[in-house]
Amino acid sequence: MDILIKNCNLISMDNKREKFEKNMDIYISNGKIAKIGKDIKEASCTKVIDAKNKICMPGLINTHAHLSMSIFRETLDGYTLQDWLNKKIWPMEDKLTREDIYYASLLSCIEMIKTGTTLANDQYFMTEDTIKAAIDTGMRMQVTRTVNDVGNAGNQRLEELEKLILEYNGKYENITLNIGIHGLYTTGKETLEKLINLAEKYSLPVHMHFCENMQEAIDIKNAYNVQSPVDVLKKYFTKTHNILAHVVKVSEEEIVEMAKLDISVAHCPISNLRLGCGVAKVQKMLDYGINVALGTDGQGSGSNLDMFDTMKFAGLLQKGVFENSANMESYEVLKMATINGAKALELEKELGSIEEGKVADIIILDLNKETCQPMGNVFSDIIYNGKGSNVETTIINGKILMENRKISNINEEEIFQKCKEIIERIK
Amino acid sequence: MDILIKNCNLISMDNKREKFEKNMDIYISNGKIAKIGKDIKEASCTKVIDAKNKICMPGLINTHAHLSMSIFRETLDGYTLQDWLNKKIWPMEDKLTREDIYYASLLSCIEMIKTGTTLANDQYFMTEDTIKAAIDTGMRMQVTRTVNDVGNAGNQRLEELEKLILEYNGKYENITLNIGIHGLYTTGKETLEKLINLAEKYSLPVHMHFCENMQEAIDIKNAYNVQSPVDVLKKYFTKTHNILAHVVKVSEEEIVEMAKLDISVAHCPISNLRLGCGVAKVQKMLDYGINVALGTDGQGSGSNLDMFDTMKFAGLLQKGVFENSANMESYEVLKMATINGAKALELEKELGSIEEGKVADIIILDLNKETCQPMGNVFSDIIYNGKGSNVETTIINGKILMENRKISNINEEEIFQKCKEIIERIK
Repeated sequence: MDILIKNCNLISMDNKREKFEKNMDIYISNGKIAKIGKDIKEASCTKVIDAKNKICMPGLINTHAHLSMSIFRETLDGYTLQDWLNKKIWPMEDKLTREDIYYASLLSCIEMIKTGTTLANDQYFMTEDTIKAAIDTGMRMQVTRTVNDVGNAGNQRLEELEKLILEYNGKYENITLNIGIHGLYTTGKETLEKLINLAEKYSLPVHMHFCENMQEAIDIKNAYNVQSPVDVLKKYFTKTHNILAHVVKVSEEEIVEMAKLDISVAHCPISNLRLGCGVAKVQKMLDYGINVALGTDGQGSGSNLDMFDTMKFAGLLQKGVFENSANMESYEVLKMATINGAKALELEKELGSIEEGKVADIIILDLNKETCQPMGNVFSDIIYNGKGSNVETTIINGKILMENRKISNINEEEIFQKCKEIIERIK
Repeated sequence: MDILIKNCNLISMDNKREKFEKNMDIYISNGKIAKIGKDIKEASCTKVIDAKNKICMPGLINTHAHLSMSIFRETLDGYTLQDWLNKKIWPMEDKLTREDIYYASLLSCIEMIKTGTTLANDQYFMTEDTIKAAIDTGMRMQVTRTVNDVGNAGNQRLEELEKLILEYNGKYENITLNIGIHGLYTTGKETLEKLINLAEKYSLPVHMHFCENMQEAIDIKNAYNVQSPVDVLKKYFTKTHNILAHVVKVSEEEIVEMAKLDISVAHCPISNLRLGCGVAKVQKMLDYGINVALGTDGQGSGSNLDMFDTMKFAGLLQKGVFENSANMESYEVLKMATINGAKALELEKELGSIEEGKVADIIILDLNKETCQPMGNVFSDIIYNGKGSNVETTIINGKILMENRKISNINEEEIFQKCKEIIERIK
């Protein structure tokens, strides 16, 4: 289906265009952005969306999530990261079936489509069923089977990961893969080397948790007998593109060293706060030239997948905690949620901005609400007053997945009920 | 009109009841909560609300706001507090007319009703017109004319404040007053003494900014020639009930001293972050027995009046910034937004919880949404996944101001347009 979006206020995130353009049309054909301009007339167009006084922008990109963890929402209060994983999450995860993973992932897909996220980077297991949820809903995902040596099952997980790559790499338009390393504190040198080899063999990016809290940083130093966790990156991660999630407990000196490698950071401010980990030095990372993108983490620690919440926290924390209101200019936060996310996942040639030739992953926002009036600065209004519920229309790969806040073909209530039953059963 | 709310899930915030009760009815008569129980049958009731699977809780209380500042939304990026006030806000405020104040306040009333706030503590000037907006919409407010010595106009402002008290104290059911002191860094000893005398004369609480950022703390010490800003409180604020907004830059030792006075803190986490002020030590204040409530501040720095945003920040910052995930249990955050707010404004006998005999300030939430499923813990779900837009019904003083997200009798678009014109004119 061809789509013509008429008269929108365009935030393309394309640095060759103005940051904000009024009364623009976007013509979408065969899943791609075919034309951007004024007064486009396409006789062949089967669907016209009137976006007058609405904002069109690239779909948001969530660069660190565990989509099957939707069922663990609000199970966390009071736990530390390590206690929560050991005592609560891991025992429950042992009971999950493939059908559970499918329904939990479906719930996450609904959340994302309804809050304007068009691409998520998932790291979990039974990945085939998360892929199935993506295919069935039309979500775009980068996925991986996470690998670590917990329970001495590193080799088995490695095999599952390679099997996943062989089966799914390049199979679906909306699905890309990467190499999932749970973390250096749970993965020994031997398994790590095999993972890096896999990344090089298939030219895939690496996706790993890194220095989420102080205990993890200490554990890495002990496990690898190094002065700094970054020393491990400098030894093993020199030829791969690396998406590192969290990166809270690194010093300015370590940031300088990290900037010399091909690293993107998936900043997950809400999860980091909830788990008592601290606040990542994002402004410093940006200042030293590291590509920083945003993530929600799983709902267990991140509560939900609404990237508008994450943008607001990302902006405000850098200003407030580091006591400099000039930190994190609003447009920079929008970049983190869009084009920087695309760079993090090595997909910036295909998506992350509204440009002719890129895939049509587009959201339409209605900010004509009481909490956004009068509009002082459109970028700040999106970051600080925008909500997932302001997303009216979500388009992925040229398909309208939500229009006027309605997702067609999904029975939301049924999926809510299924997920409720899963957590009741395993908790 | 009598109202019967049927079959709600009740979070009464009354510590004599269970924290969460299923299938409860609430009968409202003559603006008051007449009865709470199961299967209430009232033949006289003219209006029945079916609240099955919905949550009923006390309306949220915003203990620090400047409601006429809605027009300054998103005018702030990059400024420090002092620069923003001096160079941007104060010159614009000089141009405000009484009609401007009325419309700007109306916009704030709409925001609050739509996001479940039923009482706000306002501090500004031309207060009569903010009161008019409250009366016209049905909002409950505690108001004041803010006093300081800027431009040597302290005496004139004092006169205006006393005139306001004489005219409005006890005049309207929904309007209470307090004594507004802008801050110790803008108010000299002589004016301060007169303000304290006024508070004692009329038995009204004091509402003052205090230690919002480091510069203010330094300015207070210089102006009053004291070792600590708290020394000024210990000298002048011993006989009054005091609502202190912000209180970011105080040490643990100063918190201990403050706890000996009759002080409530209006914690405004979002404004504090946005202005680069830092993060208040709220968990410590609570541990030392200080009553802490929540505020949004004006939209200029707080962006909007959605108290759900403020609750989320209040909870997460104490966990994350002070690196202890056990900080700020969710129910404690709900208390801050309700009953603690009532205590802060010395209205806890009349409101702040759903109790028989208290005024009917009640909100009904629909959390049956994708970002709240499955519901792991109802209190955490409200704090971390609730949004102003989940508020379906807002009742103030027994009057339904919003039902199914519709405010009757207000033309929202007209007020948005008016506010847009005001900021265009004065900026």
